[in-house]
This record gives sequence, C-alpha cells and structure tokens, in this order.
Amino acid sequence: MDAPRDRQQRRVDTLRKLETEPDVWVATASGDGTPYLVPLSLAWDGRRVVVCAQRGSRTIDNLLRSGVARLGLGLTRDVVILEVVVSDSWPARDVPSAIADQFATRADWDPRRDPGDYIYVALEPRRIQAWRESNELSGRLLMRDGAWLD
Amino acid sequence: MDAPRDRQQRRVDTLRKLETEPDVWVATASGDGTPYLVPLSLAWDGRRVVVCAQRGSRTIDNLLRSGVARLGLGLTRDVVILEVVVSDSWPARDVPSAIADQFATRADWDPRRDPGDYIYVALEPRRIQAWRESNELSGRLLMRDGAWLD
Repeated sequence: MDAPRDRQQRRVDTLRKLETEPDVWVATASGDGTPYLVPLSLAWDGRRVVVCAQRGSRTIDNLLRSGVARLGLGLTRDVVILEVVVSDSWPARDVPSAIADQFATRADWDPRRDPGDYIYVALEPRRIQAWRESNELSGRLLMRDGAWLD
Repeated sequence: MDAPRDRQQRRVDTLRKLETEPDVWVATASGDGTPYLVPLSLAWDGRRVVVCAQRGSRTIDNLLRSGVARLGLGLTRDVVILEVVVSDSWPARDVPSAIADQFATRADWDPRRDPGDYIYVALEPRRIQAWRESNELSGRLLMRDGAWLD
C-alpha cells in the first residue's frame, strides 16, 4: 500500500481523472426507488461533467426527473465518487458547440451526427470523495456543498 | 476494435470477472429515490454475489429495504452489468463460514474479526449484460429472469 496522498494531491489527481477518464459510472434512481447504473462517455468543462444519452432512456428520465446522480470514476481501487446535481440539459440541436465539440473529441462519438434523439446533461458536483486503499479513507472528502476544501 | 465475442465467450468472461474482480460498483436507491453508489469487495459462491458493509450504512439500508441493486463489474470499456435481488443477509456472527472464508480470502479483509457491526448480503442475478465496445451492444444480454441464455 502506498503512503496516503494529501488532499492537494487528491484534488490534482481527481481533476486529471475528470479530464481524461474515458467513461463514468452513472447511478440514478427512478421515482419508485429502483436503482439504475450505466457507464457513459463524459466531458468536463472545468466545472461540470457532461454526459449524453438517448431521450427516453432510463438514465435521462431519472436525471431529468430527480435532478441528482452519483458518479463513480476510475478503477475501484483508485476511486472518485461525485454527488452531482443537474445544472443544464439540451437536446442535440441546442447544445452549446463548445460543449458538444469537446464531448465529441473525447468520446470519439458525436451525438449531433447520430440519427438518434440525444440529450446532453451537465452535472455539477456538490460533494467529491477520492481514495485508493483503506489508508486513504480518512481525508477522502475533497468537496462539500460545491466548494473544494483547502 | 476487436471482433465481437459470441454469447458463450461473454458468459465465460463474465464468470471469470465474478470470480476474480477485486471490487464491484453497487448502485442502490433510498425510498425517496436518491441514488447511492459505492465500490465494495465481493465474493462469488457460484450463484450469488456476496458483499459486506456496516449495519446502518446507506448501501445496507437500501439493500435491506428495497431488496434490489444494480452492479457494475470491470472496466468501463469491458463491462458487466447485473440486476440483482437480495436472496439472503446475515450479521457477521451468523454468516455461513464457507461464504465468510471465501470473502475474507478474496477481499484480504475478514469482517468477522473487525470490531464494526457488519452485514453480509447475498445478491442473486436476475439479468446480466456484458459488452466491451459499441460493436458488442448487440448480443449483450446473457441472463434473463435468472436464467442464462443459450
């Protein structure tokens, strides 16, 4: 087991993961409390995670109804967990091009050129935790109420 | 992109993941529809995924109340998704030793020797999907209503 990282290092590593991981696990729930979980491509605009899926898919329905999700990034022994709220959503024809271009480059898939009916959703982190092994469970909280901890 | 695997190969790969992955992403939901997601150590008894967490943790509360979860195994570009139902749960003092021994060996952690108050939960898959990249989305369903498809 490596020595535990300090909070500053975890924040650096977390931002790198948000910028580079190919996919994010997106956990949502329906109104009757049924959990849902899928891996989705993501983009990061410096402040928000952006995902995209078909209109009417369970993830999109759950996100738009509840406004919340919990995200898992990285390997299970090098974990970032984010509690997020929906801050914006757009059909493909209305999505800002800076966001859609970044998404297309990173995902190697451009939903604007896909015949399906896609919705982009911007997810703003309110709480972030990051840890590798058990010796990093202490100090895993990096963001609370949307603010990075010093 | 590799050639898509046939169903038989995906089943073999899925069983290997159930036997060897160090952790599983466990998505649950509370009664008010708030999603929860954590990575947990797991064991596989040939039929059920076994996880363990503290009594009163959100995952245990959600599992015992709702009886359902959705699990994610593997890397996000080599994915197994399982819809599961709770088939059994035991406090550490009552867990069958075959299950607890297997869990301890695989997790390198024995909750029976831990001062916390732990609950083991056995999760039976009802539906399993496995895919790597977009060319494997077709044919990703491996189990339906608890039965492996031929």
